Amino acid sequence: MIKVVARHKVKVDKIAQFIELAKELVANTQKLDEGCIHYDLYQDQSDPAILTIMEEWASPELLDRHMNAKHFLELVPRLGARCEGPADINLYRML
Amino acid sequence: MIKVVARHKVKVDKIAQFIELAKELVANTQKLDEGCIHYDLYQDQSDPAILTIMEEWASPELLDRHMNAKHFLELVPRLGARCEGPADINLYRML
Repeated sequence: MIKVVARHKVKVDKIAQFIELAKELVANTQKLDEGCIHYDLYQDQSDPAILTIMEEWASPELLDRHMNAKHFLELVPRLGARCEGPADINLYRML
Repeated sequence: MIKVVARHKVKVDKIAQFIELAKELVANTQKLDEGCIHYDLYQDQSDPAILTIMEEWASPELLDRHMNAKHFLELVPRLGARCEGPADINLYRML
């Protein structure tokens, strides 16, 4: 089991667009991607420009497959274009 | 429902001590703290000095109560003393 936390600092005037695109990514991933246990969008309670996807995957292979899915390859660059910088991503194992 | 991600950059020679103390905090919190839905310790897969507690709480009031519990007040400063700097904490709501 792999947990992923992908935190984005979004440009303030692009928050609504980012949320719309991220929700499309969430919906497609939950519906289509094998091995997806959790995949949800969160907003920081004190800074609405911090938008984070928290994920749980059954295996590294299925996470890799997700990162090569059509919806991922199409939507992630469009999300990135609305951010202040690169996403801050951690892959975790539970201790 | 509130999600908390508390990421720590731990001093390399203090990782084992940090994990031991954090596991004590996790065990006490899961056992004693009302409103705790999830509370688990994770380690970054590429940097073992990144140790993160991911939490889910039923309400802000019960999260506050956890932060005033004896085990929290006693263990958190001891965890902090083993870190490179302050923890990087986000409180989230799901969108």
